[in-house]
Amino acid sequence: MPSARRTYTFLGPEGTFTEAALLQVPDAAESLRIPSSNVNAALDRVRDGSADAAMVPIENSVEGGVTATLDSIATGQELRIIREALVPISFVLVARAGVELSQIRRISTHGHAWAQCRLWVDEHIPGAEYIPGSSTAAAAMGLLEDDAHYDAAICAPIVAAEQPALHVLAENIGDNPGAVTRFILVSRPGILPARTGADKTTVVVPLPEDRPGALMEILDQFATRGVNLSRIESRPTGQYLGHYFFSIDADGHVGDARVADALAGLHRISPATRFLGSYGRADAQAPVVPEHTSDEAFQAAHAWVKGILAGDSLGPETLVEASPSA
Amino acid sequence: MPSARRTYTFLGPEGTFTEAALLQVPDAAESLRIPSSNVNAALDRVRDGSADAAMVPIENSVEGGVTATLDSIATGQELRIIREALVPISFVLVARAGVELSQIRRISTHGHAWAQCRLWVDEHIPGAEYIPGSSTAAAAMGLLEDDAHYDAAICAPIVAAEQPALHVLAENIGDNPGAVTRFILVSRPGILPARTGADKTTVVVPLPEDRPGALMEILDQFATRGVNLSRIESRPTGQYLGHYFFSIDADGHVGDARVADALAGLHRISPATRFLGSYGRADAQAPVVPEHTSDEAFQAAHAWVKGILAGDSLGPETLVEASPSA
Amino acid sequence: MPSARRTYTFLGPEGTFTEAALLQVPDAAESLRIPSSNVNAALDRVRDGSADAAMVPIENSVEGGVTATLDSIATGQELRIIREALVPISFVLVARAGVELSQIRRISTHGHAWAQCRLWVDEHIPGAEYIPGSSTAAAAMGLLEDDAHYDAAICAPIVAAEQPALHVLAENIGDNPGAVTRFILVSRPGILPARTGADKTTVVVPLPEDRPGALMEILDQFATRGVNLSRIESRPTGQYLGHYFFSIDADGHVGDARVADALAGLHRISPATRFLGSYGRADAQAPVVPEHTSDEAFQAAHAWVKGILAGDSLGPETLVEASPSA
Amino acid sequence: MPSARRTYTFLGPEGTFTEAALLQVPDAAESLRIPSSNVNAALDRVRDGSADAAMVPIENSVEGGVTATLDSIATGQELRIIREALVPISFVLVARAGVELSQIRRISTHGHAWAQCRLWVDEHIPGAEYIPGSSTAAAAMGLLEDDAHYDAAICAPIVAAEQPALHVLAENIGDNPGAVTRFILVSRPGILPARTGADKTTVVVPLPEDRPGALMEILDQFATRGVNLSRIESRPTGQYLGHYFFSIDADGHVGDARVADALAGLHRISPATRFLGSYGRADAQAPVVPEHTSDEAFQAAHAWVKGILAGDSLGPETLVEASPSA
Repeated sequence: MPSARRTYTFLGPEGTFTEAALLQVPDAAESLRIPSSNVNAALDRVRDGSADAAMVPIENSVEGGVTATLDSIATGQELRIIREALVPISFVLVARAGVELSQIRRISTHGHAWAQCRLWVDEHIPGAEYIPGSSTAAAAMGLLEDDAHYDAAICAPIVAAEQPALHVLAENIGDNPGAVTRFILVSRPGILPARTGADKTTVVVPLPEDRPGALMEILDQFATRGVNLSRIESRPTGQYLGHYFFSIDADGHVGDARVADALAGLHRISPATRFLGSYGRADAQAPVVPEHTSDEAFQAAHAWVKGILAGDSLGPETLVEASPSA
Repeated sequence: MPSARRTYTFLGPEGTFTEAALLQVPDAAESLRIPSSNVNAALDRVRDGSADAAMVPIENSVEGGVTATLDSIATGQELRIIREALVPISFVLVARAGVELSQIRRISTHGHAWAQCRLWVDEHIPGAEYIPGSSTAAAAMGLLEDDAHYDAAICAPIVAAEQPALHVLAENIGDNPGAVTRFILVSRPGILPARTGADKTTVVVPLPEDRPGALMEILDQFATRGVNLSRIESRPTGQYLGHYFFSIDADGHVGDARVADALAGLHRISPATRFLGSYGRADAQAPVVPEHTSDEAFQAAHAWVKGILAGDSLGPETLVEASPSA
Repeated sequence: MPSARRTYTFLGPEGTFTEAALLQVPDAAESLRIPSSNVNAALDRVRDGSADAAMVPIENSVEGGVTATLDSIATGQELRIIREALVPISFVLVARAGVELSQIRRISTHGHAWAQCRLWVDEHIPGAEYIPGSSTAAAAMGLLEDDAHYDAAICAPIVAAEQPALHVLAENIGDNPGAVTRFILVSRPGILPARTGADKTTVVVPLPEDRPGALMEILDQFATRGVNLSRIESRPTGQYLGHYFFSIDADGHVGDARVADALAGLHRISPATRFLGSYGRADAQAPVVPEHTSDEAFQAAHAWVKGILAGDSLGPETLVEASPSA
Repeated sequence: MPSARRTYTFLGPEGTFTEAALLQVPDAAESLRIPSSNVNAALDRVRDGSADAAMVPIENSVEGGVTATLDSIATGQELRIIREALVPISFVLVARAGVELSQIRRISTHGHAWAQCRLWVDEHIPGAEYIPGSSTAAAAMGLLEDDAHYDAAICAPIVAAEQPALHVLAENIGDNPGAVTRFILVSRPGILPARTGADKTTVVVPLPEDRPGALMEILDQFATRGVNLSRIESRPTGQYLGHYFFSIDADGHVGDARVADALAGLHRISPATRFLGSYGRADAQAPVVPEHTSDEAFQAAHAWVKGILAGDSLGPETLVEASPSA
């Protein structure tokens, strides 16, 4: 199918950091890119086949993606993460032409962006009132509407660059200059990216409640196989207080024996464990794998046990069979 | 081969507790029973094929079997434990006819028997001198020799019963009236007793020295799979100070998925781990197996991982393959 | 100071579930109750002394409290949790008089409330557009303004009851009928509620990064002392990707030896661990404390070690002192 | 008391490796040295005050010391290890003058020495019969008696050197040329050697039976505090099958906070834990102590918890006291 153009969706609107992340995917520039109004909508487009994949934020996002993404991929029809992307985050304060910093009383942006610019705002516009926005880009575009009930917005530099009617009052106003957001590319099951040697595996593990210490048991499944975790986040299941699932990124690929073995262990402890994909790390950093957790060690171990089970069952007449009461 | 009579050996001489243990084996009474002078000799008879199986003491023995057995089955040509037997232990003090308790100055017996009768001896024959014997039976029979340089011996009741020339001066002189010795029946590999549901698996695990905490890692292989241990004993390897192996009895059969998985884990951590057999427990006590360590849980877990690895690799044209730089 | 009336603040506006939680505090009804516009503002009022204590949501809230509260009490000037309160959560859909269900296109409420009513909305008002609100009460009150750009709001029953201009279109529209939110009463340090036997201790533990397995080490501090955890949540520190702290509720009171010992262990592993208080559980459920983690066991253990250190250092002339090269 | 000569006892007879170990103690050469016929007798001399200290083998001994020592110091009146000594072990084969290697049929020695020379004997005197001896020195001296019923003995070089009537037929006949035995100097309680920075602490821990996983709990007490173990040996308590105690050497001194804390943990889990002493390592090798298990970390942690308990209990009138139903 040489001519089939792929369809991507992303957490919109256009001009957010998420579209920047999507454009890191090799064929995204020449593919169809459909903005979705929220993470659920983006993932639903993948689920119903109207998009091939969705780019959504998963960690430390400024667009509200984190918990929405964690919860949305953890439930409903299964999905797979097939890629990750990192995007540096910086913020600008924008207003309509003619508005000056000293005139600003009410600022709109997404709640996460607001949180990341609090120090700057407290210092430069003390007493500013916060107006919640559904995204940084929406807040910025809202300034151009006639009935805008706020004076300025905090958004990504790209939005300001593309919209001449917006005036940048201040740049790099984020409290943490090295801020980065991690995004994931999500598709339907059926795609398992090849091992690169520097991979990451994401799982969702509901915390079993019938046993105390279940979280330690879960972590132990990784530790016993020498699999390091790069992210672990608790999320309420929404059923009742104290009922959690854990969203975990582990070093390695399900094609690595140590990871496959750890996953099997998780499944035993928490049978509703969900596999969300193995994919190359954006930083391409390969883990150090001790010899006793190498693929070779696992293969040798399984061959050894198989040999015991097979090789020792020889012959119809054995001492044991002669001892029926044994 | 209907007429082939089996050949058993046991830690002799005749009349020790070990022969009593051997007689618990269904066909032992009508089989050839050859006493061996020590545990090594008994096991070597199995190794070289001159005996089909050997009964030797392994735990809390009075005949010196324990460490000799642990060390002997842990090294050399591989062997298999195919059965265990428990024998209650009691001791009698014997002398030649005409010798009375008050005349006794020097007592011979095996060192373990001596240790188990110390309280009685200290009370009834204070100041008695101990003459080491190679077995309780040998000590007793030695009394009948002309040049016997001791006055009494401590041995099993059966020895006294079979030898009229020996006079029993005192019965049940052991310090611990409930003493029991555990014996094992050892054969060449090729025999794996069927699962009974109340089984025991014995392994020998050299302690790896390249990692601190290796013993906890070893124990954790069992704990992670819910496998209880009923015996754990450290033994020096004889190579240098602080170099150990552990002899371990675990609940369950290598045919149980949780035990097989634990063994595979041990093999990874300590590749020289030796499997010494799975066999029915003498007390026929079945373990309680939590659901998440049942065979079903292991099978479901492995099927799930297999499904991920198989089902997700579909199709020649995927998003991932379209992204060579991913 | 008999006449000093206490000042409480709470996450406002009036009429939210948080005020209901505050009214569970014995003297709150006759005290001054000041609504704060957000969690940070409420806690800052406690920090600067303008309020004696603040009631804020901490878990599974509908008012956006969770992460705001977790992050706000984890940093800045130290605070103490001195009480918890549980409030059942239910939602109503309100509109101005004359507006019917079939006319509703745009609905405003807080994001958490929206998330908890999605199933009902999807079924009864398919295609409804969501307008973010800063709180459920604010969204409801906003309906009464002239320029309201939405048709209905989701809020607590209490808001509708107190505002006759609001018309209830549907009751109990939450997807989870048993929903409960947990609130905490926060004061300045200097107050440690007495042990009740059914207590909870809250700590914030930054995850040390210099050691793999640090999270297991942290959990192990509790497990080793038989202290169960009733809540564990990860939060990004905001410094960079993958840098977390954990907010943990543990069974027991810092006055319990096992809890004090666990806290000391946490402090060693993660010296920036923050103690947020010990206080009675709202459900008054006392934990079962195994003998070996009882106060008596800890006291006996410490007395034993002290005895070794003290009692064994006797005398100026010892064998050891005579052996300078030892 | 300048003239008080000290009295030492040791596992005799004279000329064994144990006396060589004793002579490593600075004042042993000019002190009274009394041989004891067995380990129990040596330790009883210390207990009853007839000796100040006893030198006995504890690990990998050739004189039967190991289990006798482990068991003897683990029970009865308390004792303290105050020093350790290492002695290289080598063996010679001796006979009366005129006897040649080819004439030897029966060899006597201690059982442990026999075990360590098996390979040499099997190669050079195949078929030799073993006659148990109570010690290597006793076996050698027995050759000089008229009624000696064996032809040769295996003993330490020192015995042959001191007894001209014994003829050395072969030297260095041990299977392991680097063999070393570790000895301990045991006194009554009341002596705690000062910290050297390279210390060892010995404890005896009965395995509690009321909880599965107790051994892991015990090991975890050390692991949690970063205390390495250099020796761990299981011993039956003698009460019934499967009832063990563990004899453990840990790096560090009870005066080290991490060791004291681990001991307190052991005491909670197994209240009959016995402290057998802290003393300098023979190899003077100091452990690496991570910062979070340093004395400073423990002191800071305890001060922090103390501060919480003390500083937070201020004032008679608190919010909490005002809330009796809290």
